[in-house]
Amino acid sequence: MDIESATQARECGLCGGWWRWLKALAEKSKSKFLNFMSDIMKTAQADPRRVIHSLKAGLAITLVSLLYFICPLYGIFGVEAIWALLTVVLVFEFTAGATLSKCMNRGVATLLAGALGLEGVILAQRLGNKVKPFVLGTLVFILAAGSTFCRFIPRIKARYDYGAMIFILTFSLVAVSGQRVDGIFDFACQRVFTILIGGATCVVISLFVCPVWAGQDLHNLIASNLEKLANFLQGFECAYFECSEGKDNPQKSVLEGYKSVLNSKASEESLANFAWWEPAHGRFRLFHPWTHYVKIGALARQCSYKFETLHRYLTPEIHVSLEFKGKVQEPCKKLCWEASQALKALSSSIRTMTEPCDAKRHLENFKNAIKDLKLALETTSLEGEELMAVIPVVTVASILIEATKCVEKIHDSVSELSHLAHFRTVKSKVSVSAEKPHLLYRGIIKPVGESYGAGHVLSALQATDSLEICAKHLSQLRVNNCC
Amino acid sequence: MDIESATQARECGLCGGWWRWLKALAEKSKSKFLNFMSDIMKTAQADPRRVIHSLKAGLAITLVSLLYFICPLYGIFGVEAIWALLTVVLVFEFTAGATLSKCMNRGVATLLAGALGLEGVILAQRLGNKVKPFVLGTLVFILAAGSTFCRFIPRIKARYDYGAMIFILTFSLVAVSGQRVDGIFDFACQRVFTILIGGATCVVISLFVCPVWAGQDLHNLIASNLEKLANFLQGFECAYFECSEGKDNPQKSVLEGYKSVLNSKASEESLANFAWWEPAHGRFRLFHPWTHYVKIGALARQCSYKFETLHRYLTPEIHVSLEFKGKVQEPCKKLCWEASQALKALSSSIRTMTEPCDAKRHLENFKNAIKDLKLALETTSLEGEELMAVIPVVTVASILIEATKCVEKIHDSVSELSHLAHFRTVKSKVSVSAEKPHLLYRGIIKPVGESYGAGHVLSALQATDSLEICAKHLSQLRVNNCC
Repeated sequence: MDIESATQARECGLCGGWWRWLKALAEKSKSKFLNFMSDIMKTAQADPRRVIHSLKAGLAITLVSLLYFICPLYGIFGVEAIWALLTVVLVFEFTAGATLSKCMNRGVATLLAGALGLEGVILAQRLGNKVKPFVLGTLVFILAAGSTFCRFIPRIKARYDYGAMIFILTFSLVAVSGQRVDGIFDFACQRVFTILIGGATCVVISLFVCPVWAGQDLHNLIASNLEKLANFLQGFECAYFECSEGKDNPQKSVLEGYKSVLNSKASEESLANFAWWEPAHGRFRLFHPWTHYVKIGALARQCSYKFETLHRYLTPEIHVSLEFKGKVQEPCKKLCWEASQALKALSSSIRTMTEPCDAKRHLENFKNAIKDLKLALETTSLEGEELMAVIPVVTVASILIEATKCVEKIHDSVSELSHLAHFRTVKSKVSVSAEKPHLLYRGIIKPVGESYGAGHVLSALQATDSLEICAKHLSQLRVNNCC
Repeated sequence: MDIESATQARECGLCGGWWRWLKALAEKSKSKFLNFMSDIMKTAQADPRRVIHSLKAGLAITLVSLLYFICPLYGIFGVEAIWALLTVVLVFEFTAGATLSKCMNRGVATLLAGALGLEGVILAQRLGNKVKPFVLGTLVFILAAGSTFCRFIPRIKARYDYGAMIFILTFSLVAVSGQRVDGIFDFACQRVFTILIGGATCVVISLFVCPVWAGQDLHNLIASNLEKLANFLQGFECAYFECSEGKDNPQKSVLEGYKSVLNSKASEESLANFAWWEPAHGRFRLFHPWTHYVKIGALARQCSYKFETLHRYLTPEIHVSLEFKGKVQEPCKKLCWEASQALKALSSSIRTMTEPCDAKRHLENFKNAIKDLKLALETTSLEGEELMAVIPVVTVASILIEATKCVEKIHDSVSELSHLAHFRTVKSKVSVSAEKPHLLYRGIIKPVGESYGAGHVLSALQATDSLEICAKHLSQLRVNNCC
């Protein structure tokens, strides 16, 4: 009786164990599935063109499958039709430039390697059937090793990596097939033709069905990177100088947006490489200076490194002298504001492909702001100040000056781009800029209370020389209020 | 007569023109060829393993070509042998991890897609011959679009991108072949078998013929990045504080070595991904914490951003107060020296896979150096100093403190790695370190004159508490000498 009940209990325990294990497994699977679904949603929301690209890829593959499905076509190409399918799967990429690059690489490499392979087969055949496999094997070894090595050379890797791979593949295929297939020439022609069909399908769908241009992406990326830098400067101004005045901190996304600029080198370079293959599209001509965007990107990165150092000083635990901060606050804020406006104007100049005239004005203003800041630092007395509490403010001011010097370089580079790419000339929108900063500013940094800082009004007013006197009065008013 | 000579002269001119054109073309081709050869030499010298890898790739391709060249083997596999060749060309990569990753991806994706494709074909066959192509076409479209979309999901892209591509390829191939080939099962088996042969060839050559381990590369990369940071700090100390004392500048390569750390994110992440696939090798076990290296790499990058800001202050045109610089010089130099020694000790701890005990000592020393520097800054009187000339020095000191705080974080992360990866415990080499800094220092920063800075002797001496009194005397001696 006791043994029986013990066995029953054990069985129950075993069942219970199994049941719990199954339940845990189901829970885990459910959570994994939900995670996967949320990943899918996030990926689609981050760039809806990805969904369209997937449908385009499905369409391209289904289209070349017709070579199998439609009897007369199958009659012509036979099993060689799989090469069209293989080509589509291997060369169809997200951007038109990447697809074109791979297609051109594949096309040229296939023709070149095919021709060389045929030559090799003919040569081996002349030397006699006994040595044929040795000659072909040696040729395959030498060319495969050579091409593999060439893929390490940076210039080749950047633009012709896929071509080198296809060269090895085609040469080896033709050479080894030459050992067995007698009608090697017909066979090679048939294969080249199906590869051309596959490539053409990819190119047509890539270029004409909702095309994604690498050039346009690069253009937008550089413009948005400059905007992120501008937003950081505005956010920093607000967080460093105004939060102590009792305002809310700007959003984290604004203050950390520049972080994506830090590591943008690889994507900028690959987009520029793909853009090089693209035909004229939209507002971009055939020989648009894509490499120049990479230069601007590098300067933006230089700037973002400085911001990374600045960002550290936002930590509230760093003890600073409020009195000293107050003394350099106005020129620092003006500097941040004008530099951020210059960056925004540069970003907008790239986006609209117009000459960066507005930026030039802000550049002049922030050069003056640097002078003001230097003057403020020179004339400020440190008597009675604790040096350790002054240092963080001095460091911030010093890095700000360095960072804004980067903005000047970016301006020069964008001006050069505007010259190279024939950007449109437009009249400077002085009057508009002078009125709009409030809206622009408030659009980005949330939440900002209704009581808008006099500093911004001041900066906005300072943007127009005609209102300078008024600004001085306002500033005076503010100083009086503070006191 | 006149007309004749004019014609002759024109012909001569034309010939001369052609000749010049041909000559220019030959010159250009020659210079291009020489450039290409120099590129080849540079690529091979940068990493001689590339030459070996190319030979390995040639060997692998020639080996699978034997399936064609040897009659009995060709009898078994027939033209399906090209799939072995295709597999080798597509999956053979530089590191063993990358090759394994691609092989596993290809293997699993081929089996999965093959099984699903066969299921699809059987289903379509049951529904009748008329609807078969429509069913198969729809299946191909849905799965191709779905898999293409999955390749955008970051987690899948990082590890299974190639697998997703092969899944699309195999499923489409099996599904469309199912429309035409009757013995689809035999045909699929034959193809899977040749792909397995290709994959196995790659894996065997990759793992057993001069293997290049992604894990080892990642390990070395992180260690060498830390060393580059250490070299920068030493070089900076020398260039900023000692050149004014009449010494030569350290080499540019030492001062700019850290720049490669700025953009190392992509390579670190891809190496960590590949290392994940590698079996235990050398001193690395199967579940070595590769992702932890990526964390250390990120911290090293953080540090390098600060160095980028510091580097700007080496420009000689920045006007600084030599008097003030002199006041903070000693603690700054000590800070640089100790932080660089800590970084070197951490780098060496990673390289030798031993616990970072030496680094801990330098860490303590540089914490003291920070205190000394802060004390020097606090007690320094600014009376009579021009603030604008003091600012760059203050900024440098401030960024140095921030940068060395990064070193502390790197130390913590390396300690964690040493715990996770079971690094060996060794006795701290206090006595050795105390004597060796000169040699280490001189090995890196060239050319350094014979008259070695007392500051270094001081720092080296300060490294051992027992010799502290002696150091003080030396320091006193130096101050007296300077006076």
